[in-house]
Amino acid sequence: MADMPADGPQVSRLSNGLPVITLAMPGIRTAAVELAADVGARHEAPHENGLAHLFEHMVFKGTGRRSARAIAEDIEDVGGALNAWTSRDMTMFHARTLAADLPLGLDMVADLIVSPRFDAEDLEREKAVVHSEIGEARDTPDDVVFDHLQARAFPDQPLGRPILGTEDSVSAATVAHLAGWRARHYHAGALVLVATGAVEHERLLADAEAALGRLPAAGARTEIPANWGGGPVGEARRIEQTHLTLGFAGPGGRDPGYHAALMFAMALGGGMSSRLFQQLREERGLAYSVSAAHGAHEEIGVMSLYCAAKPADSEAAALLAMEVAHAAAADLSAAELDRARAQVKAGLLMGLEGCAGQADWLARGWLTFGRLYSAGEALAEMDALTVDDVRAAGRAMLASRPAIAIVGTRGDRLADRLATRIGR
Amino acid sequence: MADMPADGPQVSRLSNGLPVITLAMPGIRTAAVELAADVGARHEAPHENGLAHLFEHMVFKGTGRRSARAIAEDIEDVGGALNAWTSRDMTMFHARTLAADLPLGLDMVADLIVSPRFDAEDLEREKAVVHSEIGEARDTPDDVVFDHLQARAFPDQPLGRPILGTEDSVSAATVAHLAGWRARHYHAGALVLVATGAVEHERLLADAEAALGRLPAAGARTEIPANWGGGPVGEARRIEQTHLTLGFAGPGGRDPGYHAALMFAMALGGGMSSRLFQQLREERGLAYSVSAAHGAHEEIGVMSLYCAAKPADSEAAALLAMEVAHAAAADLSAAELDRARAQVKAGLLMGLEGCAGQADWLARGWLTFGRLYSAGEALAEMDALTVDDVRAAGRAMLASRPAIAIVGTRGDRLADRLATRIGR
Repeated sequence: MADMPADGPQVSRLSNGLPVITLAMPGIRTAAVELAADVGARHEAPHENGLAHLFEHMVFKGTGRRSARAIAEDIEDVGGALNAWTSRDMTMFHARTLAADLPLGLDMVADLIVSPRFDAEDLEREKAVVHSEIGEARDTPDDVVFDHLQARAFPDQPLGRPILGTEDSVSAATVAHLAGWRARHYHAGALVLVATGAVEHERLLADAEAALGRLPAAGARTEIPANWGGGPVGEARRIEQTHLTLGFAGPGGRDPGYHAALMFAMALGGGMSSRLFQQLREERGLAYSVSAAHGAHEEIGVMSLYCAAKPADSEAAALLAMEVAHAAAADLSAAELDRARAQVKAGLLMGLEGCAGQADWLARGWLTFGRLYSAGEALAEMDALTVDDVRAAGRAMLASRPAIAIVGTRGDRLADRLATRIGR
Repeated sequence: MADMPADGPQVSRLSNGLPVITLAMPGIRTAAVELAADVGARHEAPHENGLAHLFEHMVFKGTGRRSARAIAEDIEDVGGALNAWTSRDMTMFHARTLAADLPLGLDMVADLIVSPRFDAEDLEREKAVVHSEIGEARDTPDDVVFDHLQARAFPDQPLGRPILGTEDSVSAATVAHLAGWRARHYHAGALVLVATGAVEHERLLADAEAALGRLPAAGARTEIPANWGGGPVGEARRIEQTHLTLGFAGPGGRDPGYHAALMFAMALGGGMSSRLFQQLREERGLAYSVSAAHGAHEEIGVMSLYCAAKPADSEAAALLAMEVAHAAAADLSAAELDRARAQVKAGLLMGLEGCAGQADWLARGWLTFGRLYSAGEALAEMDALTVDDVRAAGRAMLASRPAIAIVGTRGDRLADRLATRIGR
């Protein structure tokens, strides 16, 4: 996988400055288009919580040229799929089509952003849908526990609030809020368009100019830098397994230390051979689900250890997970680093064999670094890591004040007890 | 997508008759190996419930040549991943590697089946892990509701029992049960090996002969034909959304009518443009999750309508879903069929662009039909369908006695009420 081969991604800019990246993939007879926006739940004011996600729902309710039904039918008539995701940092609009329908896919993701028709009646109906989505998430313990973790990691900050918002904050949204959100955030300077698969750069570029060239060049926005908190939160809930997660402050996606943190989390709990899997599940049988991961925002990341265990085993599982993490930060071996590196590298390569994976990689790289960020560059950064780098990354993260989130039988008491044993 | 191009899949048989399929995919630098067994939870005797799945777990606990840790480390050392899934009809063992490591991937999936080392102590520890898995599933309402549906659809039959088993049935398993399960089901006549991506047929075949050629040619097994039941089951549970599913008897995967049923379910609730999505979510705001699907066993299938709605809305949602389904069976349009067909066809093509998708398609086709079943053949069957075929498939399924499964606040009462209104 050479760094940026001759037939690698091509980048151009529209007249308003909006970057357009294409990657032609030989042998692929389908295409993906991703229009990615550098905006998410973390850009919401407190009273706006849930607005980034509600906006992403509402653009599907109709545009200047298409009713909600036409949006659904136009893309599905050709067997395509239109999707969108909101995270804390980014919002993605994604179309997947056969090769011949790429122009339609582009037209549709652009249409959603360029001319959404926000109608007050549609908004009321969509609020009910989002209330259902919030209810479903709250019925899912492993969703809830990570929202709790995020809230403890970043207390009283936009980054700590739930992406879906709350019933109250969603109920308070108006058509004017949606229009204001679009005006603030959906401008050429905060967007990137990526098309991959069966795509021809010049053709795509001309279509993109027609579809997106009239968006304003720039807008205004606020981003509040993250401020790590930590500490316990427990929710008592009568369920069979206690869902338990421990979070630590780590490097963000733009930080040079990002890959060392990623490798540490991978070696600690990324696969079957990882220390957490081996010690909690294989040796002790304490849990079915057990893992570690490092999730990055722009300027900060969260390394999380997660497991679900019987209530009677959950304190032991949490203490053992902490012990295993500290041990790894002290004595992670070269073989473990090599294995973690092989897993991350192979996973990346496999993900990039499909158009959707390529489009998402290119879009995220652009929004993170403001430039093309190639897989070759990422691989080189990984190759340069030493065991000392990775141990040091682990120690640095484990030195932060842990955020502790628990959902389960007597989860409130367990959170407090753990805080006294492993908190600071 | 021509039917079986010159460079399409190649099939050979090992000396014991075990079929080996390869598909070389130009431009792909990774590989997938799937060893698929024609055995699943439906082949369990009542006292064995959960054994197919427990077996799939236990083969990872060590083989004649590798400890549990070595299994995990050997594959992850090269960045590969080893996975396994148990369904009611099949069990799949899957390795994903870079091109150069395909021989290792094959060696490992074969090793799991050829020489698993079932140790009583390991078994006791793994039972605790599976108990946790059962607990997690029971904490997830949309898992539970589909297990309830399956139980009502196929009462007192292996096909109606949960794949994971119950705490009691799992606790009762012994090393002798595991060994017996292997002897009964893991022979050349019930297996197929598929390798896709960067693969060369003759080389793979030689490796497969060495790895799998000494498995016995045939074994014995029992398969109890499905017997549709239907009727209500409701579980009262204090959660925010009521999860509700309605099931109808339909054609199995081997049935010539399978694709008509698949198209009906797709048009009814497969995408954003489907009738259920438009009428329940877009027009009424009754639910966030709403869908229909047709899931096929060998000789019978289950068309399920699913939604999660507020308790106060759930009866209305169920009655509306039934109304929408009957209307579709009466007046589905040619445009709707064309759209459903385009979605299924494009989804298939996109799925087959990756090695894992190709391997799984080839393995499932072989286990279902006992021969190569090409995507071209499936597409031709879809193309031949008329609106009348699809409406008739819908009417036939809706004429079966509905299975009704509900999990949510007063879910027990709602199930009984619905049974009197839509049951038979």
